Amino acid sequence: MQTVAVVGLGLIGGSVARDLAARGVRVLGHDRDSSATASALAEGVIHGDLGAGLERVAGASVVILAVPVDEAVELLGVLTPLVRQATLVTDVGSTKASIVAAAEAQGPGFATRFVGSHPLAGDHRSGWNASRLDLFTGAPVYLCPARGASRDATAAAASLWLELGGVPEFIDAAHHDAKVAWSSHLPQIVSSALALALDREGAKRSDLGPGGHDVTRLAGSSAEMWSAIARDNAFEVGAAIVEVERQLHALRSALELDSAATIREWFVAARRWYQRKQ
Amino acid sequence: MQTVAVVGLGLIGGSVARDLAARGVRVLGHDRDSSATASALAEGVIHGDLGAGLERVAGASVVILAVPVDEAVELLGVLTPLVRQATLVTDVGSTKASIVAAAEAQGPGFATRFVGSHPLAGDHRSGWNASRLDLFTGAPVYLCPARGASRDATAAAASLWLELGGVPEFIDAAHHDAKVAWSSHLPQIVSSALALALDREGAKRSDLGPGGHDVTRLAGSSAEMWSAIARDNAFEVGAAIVEVERQLHALRSALELDSAATIREWFVAARRWYQRKQ
Repeated sequence: MQTVAVVGLGLIGGSVARDLAARGVRVLGHDRDSSATASALAEGVIHGDLGAGLERVAGASVVILAVPVDEAVELLGVLTPLVRQATLVTDVGSTKASIVAAAEAQGPGFATRFVGSHPLAGDHRSGWNASRLDLFTGAPVYLCPARGASRDATAAAASLWLELGGVPEFIDAAHHDAKVAWSSHLPQIVSSALALALDREGAKRSDLGPGGHDVTRLAGSSAEMWSAIARDNAFEVGAAIVEVERQLHALRSALELDSAATIREWFVAARRWYQRKQ
Repeated sequence: MQTVAVVGLGLIGGSVARDLAARGVRVLGHDRDSSATASALAEGVIHGDLGAGLERVAGASVVILAVPVDEAVELLGVLTPLVRQATLVTDVGSTKASIVAAAEAQGPGFATRFVGSHPLAGDHRSGWNASRLDLFTGAPVYLCPARGASRDATAAAASLWLELGGVPEFIDAAHHDAKVAWSSHLPQIVSSALALALDREGAKRSDLGPGGHDVTRLAGSSAEMWSAIARDNAFEVGAAIVEVERQLHALRSALELDSAATIREWFVAARRWYQRKQ
């Protein structure tokens, strides 16, 4: 029977473990928060603890790193001697270039097993208590194989996410990072920036209408996870932020000049984007 | 039996009409889009058309202007000779200083009846087809009486919104506009600015995850309504936009310097605002 090791039992790792366990897969897991590990054991989601040194990873055919991107990069050194039996080592981080490069740097014996994953799922909640079944149903999942990754590894990565209801798409890691800087990291940052501006003014979330609640929801996301992502993708993220600053400045200038047509076109163009057929 | 006139049968006006009709009130309505008026008549939501010149407003005890703020200001001149029997004339616009000033400028005979309203309800959808029952349940409703408004008028305004399930709060019009620049107008503008930035990059809404969908939802709002609001509240809105630009710039600078602690604190502070008990 296949054994899957899940390192980190937060929103994503916990949800992966739940889905796999529900499909009869033997899951071993570990979270540095021992109460998360204990809950996962008590609920029967994981069949055993990987151990503080992750020793039991050695018996797994699939290893999934579900920790913040900076920690995942650091963990590779720990895993390399342990994963000689694994077909696939993957992660779930929102940036892919640094983890893929770090996997390649572990040498060909590791790179052959490594395919980075980025499921576009989850929300502002985090931790084991936010994990749930079917989180990945219909979610796009970007897959970035290390140079030298085996056909078995890429096939195992695609099967894993298909099994969990996701929609895998292979993509170059650098291209991935440029893309998600806009589609994923920028919405997070814009939501947080709005929260900080409202905080400055003393406006509370309860002062907002339903629309304002939507726009600020992501501000509640894990600060640890997002600071790691932003740092890891700083160049691309910086370019995306500049563009939002530019758009805000354009509206502000038009308001100062009371340029009715420019102001109207600004909102019309935003709405046109929203309504565009995909 | 009380007759209420609703001018404009979009999301807000249509929903007000539906709620009142459901409570047995006789509602007369009109929308410059004749298909909206016809639908409201056909569905039995309004009992009659106010007429293109709004002539039948003369028989109403309550008159509700549910059109964009700039149009509402212009309509006051048309209404003034028609509302001599009305206890209350109100609007539903997202800015209040200009409409209250315009009502006062119509003279004391008009100002005595005028109490501006701003229900914090609705969403990015607009038009008659988006209108629905119970839109105002639990919604804060700001009320801004004109100088000289009668006690009957303020009482009628409070009753109207209480009857519709809202939570009325009297507030000075200038204070209102400063407050909603942050709590309502800024979230709209931030959502639209993100949409425009994504559009520049060629990112589609379908490329976004569930969080990104939330942040960009308001970008689908009525451009006509929002350009009128932004122009009408340009000074306060400009100050609010500057603060978001400042927050974005702060993160971007920290990313350029790779200041781990500053980056982390930026996301932590945003999350702290989100989690603050109200």
